[in-house]
Amino acid sequence: MASYVVTGASRGIGLELVKQLLQEKSVGQVFALSRSQPAAALQDLVSKHSDRLQHVKASVDSTESVEAAAKEVATKLNGSGLDVLVNNAGIQLASPGGTRTMTAESLTEVLDVNVVGVQRVTAAFLPLLERGKGKKVINVSSTLGSIAWADKFAQGPVQAYKISKAALNMLNAQYALDFAGAGFTFLAVSPGWLKTDLGGEYADLQPEVGVAELKRIILEAKPAMNGKFVNIHVPGMEEAHGRYDGGEVPW
Amino acid sequence: MASYVVTGASRGIGLELVKQLLQEKSVGQVFALSRSQPAAALQDLVSKHSDRLQHVKASVDSTESVEAAAKEVATKLNGSGLDVLVNNAGIQLASPGGTRTMTAESLTEVLDVNVVGVQRVTAAFLPLLERGKGKKVINVSSTLGSIAWADKFAQGPVQAYKISKAALNMLNAQYALDFAGAGFTFLAVSPGWLKTDLGGEYADLQPEVGVAELKRIILEAKPAMNGKFVNIHVPGMEEAHGRYDGGEVPW
Ligand SMILES: NC(=O)c1ccc[n+]([C@@H]2O[C@H](COP(=O)([O-])OP(=O)(O)OC[C@H]3O[C@@H](n4cnc5c(N)ncnc54)[C@H](OP(=O)(O)O)[C@@H]3O)[C@@H](O)[C@H]2O)c1
Ligand SMILES: NC(=O)c1ccc[n+]([C@@H]2O[C@H](COP(=O)([O-])OP(=O)(O)OC[C@H]3O[C@@H](n4cnc5c(N)ncnc54)[C@H](OP(=O)(O)O)[C@@H]3O)[C@@H](O)[C@H]2O)c1
Repeated sequence: MASYVVTGASRGIGLELVKQLLQEKSVGQVFALSRSQPAAALQDLVSKHSDRLQHVKASVDSTESVEAAAKEVATKLNGSGLDVLVNNAGIQLASPGGTRTMTAESLTEVLDVNVVGVQRVTAAFLPLLERGKGKKVINVSSTLGSIAWADKFAQGPVQAYKISKAALNMLNAQYALDFAGAGFTFLAVSPGWLKTDLGGEYADLQPEVGVAELKRIILEAKPAMNGKFVNIHVPGMEEAHGRYDGGEVPW
Repeated sequence: MASYVVTGASRGIGLELVKQLLQEKSVGQVFALSRSQPAAALQDLVSKHSDRLQHVKASVDSTESVEAAAKEVATKLNGSGLDVLVNNAGIQLASPGGTRTMTAESLTEVLDVNVVGVQRVTAAFLPLLERGKGKKVINVSSTLGSIAWADKFAQGPVQAYKISKAALNMLNAQYALDFAGAGFTFLAVSPGWLKTDLGGEYADLQPEVGVAELKRIILEAKPAMNGKFVNIHVPGMEEAHGRYDGGEVPW
């Protein structure tokens, strides 16, 4: 059975993913990482699945915190490797005036969590992943990070976020190249525009829908997909604005 | 005559660009920005062209420093607007072990100068650019920032740099969308692999060659090119590794 680490599991996509992973027979130990003590929803889940689900503290904006989390997971895995890492934690700071009002401070903060955060977590868990069989690293990206589609999504006043996800896609590509020979699958996935705190109430889809697809993609991920950037598939919404056709997203 | 601001003008591409711009009749005031007092080469140039060339201090990693520079340039322009801003300052930190040895600290530093630095400078000079006629912002990017070409350039152990230039390309795209209606041209340009301190001795081209092309692209830039990412053209080297065909670089 495969072991999983999911960052940003306190709410939104991360929490829903942990919930859905636990419904899978192929899923063994799940480590739900969050930066604070688990709120009620995650705490309930941990109590219900105490045999397979454990909470571990990790702020992705702190190398020290992330390294301590990797150590704790290693201890809990008791000599086994880690199979799958899902880099899900992320932030989005709105800039209603677009680039006109985006501050250097907000750009720095978003890059620190969404890009450097992924670097911190990936670096810290790599030794464990190298000892695992799955060798999958899933980076939760966004079609908003597609430069080719920038004009399609021009309305979204989250410029720093878009810049961070383009950077994340390149980070994913660089790891994919470096670890292809070692059997790894680094995959950037856009989970769809989902009704979470980050996605907001006008989003296209319920979190459950996008996360079911995210889960499917994680389970199906294999080295042939290493380095790619893929979209979810929602039947009937292939031509929708978010182009949920399950295909590759252009850079 | 058009006025120019060039960041990172102390050496390499920035210094050579200032030199070549001064040979153009259409070029008026040039402001050469650098973070320290000008070294001999820039100082000589300033003395020789004291009627058109002025040095202004600016560290792109400091919002305060960049804002003070914009104020100083505004005073020197004495009511006129600025026509062209060239965001050239940049750093590249090698990571010989690739993503395996890239640290969060080095990634943070490279993003701060190459991406947030461009944001600081662009934001500070925008009011002046809006009063200018040229309305050109040239972002010196790199084909190493092309995700589509990542495998082509897999050998270059400068992962943080590649991530930063992909992010810069998205920043360029976002500004281009926001300021298209105001007649601006935001253009990302790859100057070719040049023998500077950053490019190293094994680079493809002498700085003069790439910078002559960069200058041509800057002079020819117009709103129809807003948001694009273009390569230099070196006759006979269209099929070379760097693909110097003057075309658009894929994202
Ligand atoms: N929702 C969408 O429409 C959508 C679309 C495309 C991509 N995504 C991506 O999906 C991921 C999850 O988004 P979401 O919609 O679930 O957002 P969300 O509901 O706002 O949840 C964000 C999660 O990230 C965590 N987080 C933020 N900063 C952190 C830090 N410094 N250290 C550790 N954890 C941190 C949060 O923890 P706290 O609870 O402690 O704040 C929370 O668990 C993000 O990467 C996002 O970019 C979302
Ligand atoms: N050379 C190439 O092959 C190549 C290829 C593609 C793109 N580029 C891009 O071209 C630009 C210039 O590169 P180059 O080859 O001329 O590099 P370089 O010879 O190393 O010069 C870098 C310049 O940037 C300045 N700089 C660095 N950090 C700064 C900061 N925090 N504040 C202000 N200025 C700072 C340096 O100033 P100091 O002298 O004070 O350090 C110097 O003037 C960069 O954006 C680079 O990414 C270069």
